[in-house]
Amino acid sequence: MAGQPPKVDVPILKDLTIDNITENVHRINSQGSDPRLKYILERLVTHLHDFARETRLSTDEWMAGIEFLTAVGKKCTDVRQEFILLSDTLGLSLLVDSIDHPKPPSSTEGTVLGPYHTHDAHDLDLGSAISGDPSGTPLLCLCTVKATSGAPIADAKVDIWETDSKGSYDVQYSDYSGEPDGRAVIKSDKEGVFWFKAIVPVPYSIPFDGPVGKMLKVLGRHSWRPSHMHFMFEKGGFDRLITTLFLRGDPYETSDAVFGVKDSLVIELGTVSAEQAKKYGVEEGTKLLTHDFVLVTDEETRKLRDEEALKAMRKLGREGMTIINGQLVPDVD
Amino acid sequence: MAGQPPKVDVPILKDLTIDNITENVHRINSQGSDPRLKYILERLVTHLHDFARETRLSTDEWMAGIEFLTAVGKKCTDVRQEFILLSDTLGLSLLVDSIDHPKPPSSTEGTVLGPYHTHDAHDLDLGSAISGDPSGTPLLCLCTVKATSGAPIADAKVDIWETDSKGSYDVQYSDYSGEPDGRAVIKSDKEGVFWFKAIVPVPYSIPFDGPVGKMLKVLGRHSWRPSHMHFMFEKGGFDRLITTLFLRGDPYETSDAVFGVKDSLVIELGTVSAEQAKKYGVEEGTKLLTHDFVLVTDEETRKLRDEEALKAMRKLGREGMTIINGQLVPDVD
Repeated sequence: MAGQPPKVDVPILKDLTIDNITENVHRINSQGSDPRLKYILERLVTHLHDFARETRLSTDEWMAGIEFLTAVGKKCTDVRQEFILLSDTLGLSLLVDSIDHPKPPSSTEGTVLGPYHTHDAHDLDLGSAISGDPSGTPLLCLCTVKATSGAPIADAKVDIWETDSKGSYDVQYSDYSGEPDGRAVIKSDKEGVFWFKAIVPVPYSIPFDGPVGKMLKVLGRHSWRPSHMHFMFEKGGFDRLITTLFLRGDPYETSDAVFGVKDSLVIELGTVSAEQAKKYGVEEGTKLLTHDFVLVTDEETRKLRDEEALKAMRKLGREGMTIINGQLVPDVD
Repeated sequence: MAGQPPKVDVPILKDLTIDNITENVHRINSQGSDPRLKYILERLVTHLHDFARETRLSTDEWMAGIEFLTAVGKKCTDVRQEFILLSDTLGLSLLVDSIDHPKPPSSTEGTVLGPYHTHDAHDLDLGSAISGDPSGTPLLCLCTVKATSGAPIADAKVDIWETDSKGSYDVQYSDYSGEPDGRAVIKSDKEGVFWFKAIVPVPYSIPFDGPVGKMLKVLGRHSWRPSHMHFMFEKGGFDRLITTLFLRGDPYETSDAVFGVKDSLVIELGTVSAEQAKKYGVEEGTKLLTHDFVLVTDEETRKLRDEEALKAMRKLGREGMTIINGQLVPDVD
């Protein structure tokens, strides 16, 4: 019968109290064979319990938490991920990206994916227009993608997404047709160049009508993101780069609701010259975004990730940790 | 506009890294006026971030967590609370009950509420049968409820719930009629006595077909609770007592999937004597449950809760904490 245990060899729980419940949960959770899973659970339960002990969490507060998490789950749909929004607004998403995708100084920094990446963007040719919004301010984007060595990366898959001029992604409209807008997948050319036409990004409020919006309100926080455009780069041999370019001078530049802004990712727009206008088929004076993205190899990322993990463990005073197949786990005795 | 901030006086985020993201999130979360909420969020974010830093959580693991929590939320219905089940199976529920409802040695210990308490039990007279299951083993329950002074508590509201003989609560059946079974609300009499007819509890598996069941499986844990009967006591002036009696010798007595067993709550059943059989209208030799419950006054609970909170803070080395209206908060400078 599902869940029916052998009635032997189950760790015996001892009379449970505030002080010993944690070690008992650890013992019950340590029966499996996956050292990484055991370590994650051990840390998770320790922090969860310490949180309750340090706050002396009340039953009413606990129930408010249960109801909040339930509402977050209920708000999730195919096109809205309220738990990612929660993670974003608590700074966890930025933190995890920073841990898992460390970047050497010479490369482009990563940032939060956000809840609006989809997998239905069309593959478009270089030079295509990714936004069909006639109210948007036209923007020419001239970019390159290179390795840290400076060598151009040809044939990189570049996934780009932005809102329309009202600050909404295509999937946020209740009457969304299923035909993607404001997003595209473009391949870089032999010189690592990719260019496309878009619209100037605008600031927007993250979804504010759900439980995460309520949380922000109670905390006296605003829900705005500064104007930005998302990019995701994939190319065999390179660590996937999820990043975003932000516009300098945006009113929310220093208070992004999801903590995504990094100074190296804040750019100033230029304007298209007469020569560029002719070459790229846009009007002179059109707003211009240029950026050179730099990817890190898988190997370099792995090495850096492992080094930084062990350095962090030493700094945290956590002894006896090792890395097996890229996973941080306690040493086996 | 909802969520639109004043564009001044918002804490300025500084270039965010693994090492400074936490303090930046704290600054943004500290704009409100509720000191308890701020303290809870500060501890929550610290533990969430420390968890990610100590495990060097990967993007894939983070996404697995997002998907798990989403599935937990989606599994919740009016009659199934998968987040409570998650809290129960991680030992958090037992811990919070222990913190919020401290008990002096002379009183009855509390334990987890569990996800199957409902509010639709009928008010029944003393001596009523609470279970309509003809396959159950009949059980006579003769109990009292008293104060720590020994004085009987009259007119206490006693909410009782148990499964049927197959180990299922009424609401777990997909064809549940809405007519409660295996549950009742009974009032104690002038001597603090309450008695009723039930069936001998059986062990059962907590719901194993959802994400929490999957988690237990992956962790090599079983999903069984030892045989038990739930009780909740409410009476003006007394701290609400949520507790459970467990049967001694149950195969799961020492490995309850939700960590609810405390030694003082494990009892042995007796058998009904000839005299009792006549007095209570059951057959001689019927199984007999007797227990004397002891409630703690609101005032004593408040005092004990505050004392234990401050004692715990000293033990944890957390200086500068105070209690205002029963809520633990940092001292205002």
